[in-house]
Amino acid sequence: MKLFSYWRSSAVWRVRIALSWKGIPHGTVPVHLVRDGGQQHSESYREVNPQERVPALEDDGRVLSQSLAIIEYLEETHPEPPLLPTDFAGRAIVRQLALAVACEIHPLQNSRVLDYLRGPLAQGDAQVADWVRHWIGQGFGALEELARRHGDGRTSLHSSGVSMADLCLVPQMYNARRHHLDLRPYPALVAIDAHLMTLPAFSTTRPEAQPDAE
Amino acid sequence: MKLFSYWRSSAVWRVRIALSWKGIPHGTVPVHLVRDGGQQHSESYREVNPQERVPALEDDGRVLSQSLAIIEYLEETHPEPPLLPTDFAGRAIVRQLALAVACEIHPLQNSRVLDYLRGPLAQGDAQVADWVRHWIGQGFGALEELARRHGDGRTSLHSSGVSMADLCLVPQMYNARRHHLDLRPYPALVAIDAHLMTLPAFSTTRPEAQPDAE
Repeated sequence: MKLFSYWRSSAVWRVRIALSWKGIPHGTVPVHLVRDGGQQHSESYREVNPQERVPALEDDGRVLSQSLAIIEYLEETHPEPPLLPTDFAGRAIVRQLALAVACEIHPLQNSRVLDYLRGPLAQGDAQVADWVRHWIGQGFGALEELARRHGDGRTSLHSSGVSMADLCLVPQMYNARRHHLDLRPYPALVAIDAHLMTLPAFSTTRPEAQPDAE
Repeated sequence: MKLFSYWRSSAVWRVRIALSWKGIPHGTVPVHLVRDGGQQHSESYREVNPQERVPALEDDGRVLSQSLAIIEYLEETHPEPPLLPTDFAGRAIVRQLALAVACEIHPLQNSRVLDYLRGPLAQGDAQVADWVRHWIGQGFGALEELARRHGDGRTSLHSSGVSMADLCLVPQMYNARRHHLDLRPYPALVAIDAHLMTLPAFSTTRPEAQPDAE
């Protein structure tokens, strides 16, 4: 397996955690999202992934993209240790929690969107910062409530233990801190994040520990 | 089962197609996203779904939200007829295609985002329309290429037949037309959408056929 990765991409970090959690050997190909006008836009990478995004995972000559699709694939091909519970309702809730980050928060604060706000919409740094904090805050408000309903509010988002929802939470918390969001309204998310970061699968895969980190 | 629905929400339409495709009996509770300042923000609905979004699905006293989590749940609890192929790689590609709409396109053009552009960012109708068409166009460009790689480019996004990816495509095409996107650069998507709309699960669940349609 070969992971196309950029150290600071939170979508790639999700996949790095899954690979580490399951102990899956793999190589890493760095794709620099800023250098050379964004290496993800190069012709050779467009051949790999027409979405011009990371992550992409090459396995058995096939290329997969979209972090949650990759994580579901790893879960099906390498079931142990699991990242989804076994009961239907639990699996649905875990997926809901993961999508609450992946569909509701992350798409609104990734770099191509912030570039559009700064460029065509001519927004200044303060407006862009407000935008980011607005959407992360709104998403975290709902996630805090869901974490209390479905988990212990201390060690993982869902009561079944570490799941693919946690793989989405930790990189999103990292992003929230980068954007100076006040995290005091989200004590359950803060506690869960702190606990998860004591686990090697989360801490060894953090952006700053990557070979391409700057 | 009880579906909390708004006629024009494309995320709800995805779930309506899945329920119809699998022939699952269910009731529908309309949630008006505009009236009363948005009924999804009411205290009673926040109790149902703290994310204050539709869809939500109540089954067996449990409430699920996030359309793709609900569709995966329906696939696991009602496997026939399927919305995912049986092989691991095919399942991953179908999920990738679904997420290419659900994570890359839809979050950037839903109404709460357009309201923020119009309100706090004081953008006019032309800027908002450009924003919407920019993101749908960018997403469709990649999806058109992926449809050619992974399907026949005529009847479904993936070669395995109708899948959860198609449940995401058709409502997104409807949105693209509402926003007057020029669809000529995406002939495969146009052909697949036209074919799918000949199938009852897609046509009978369309927004205008809903009891709460205006």
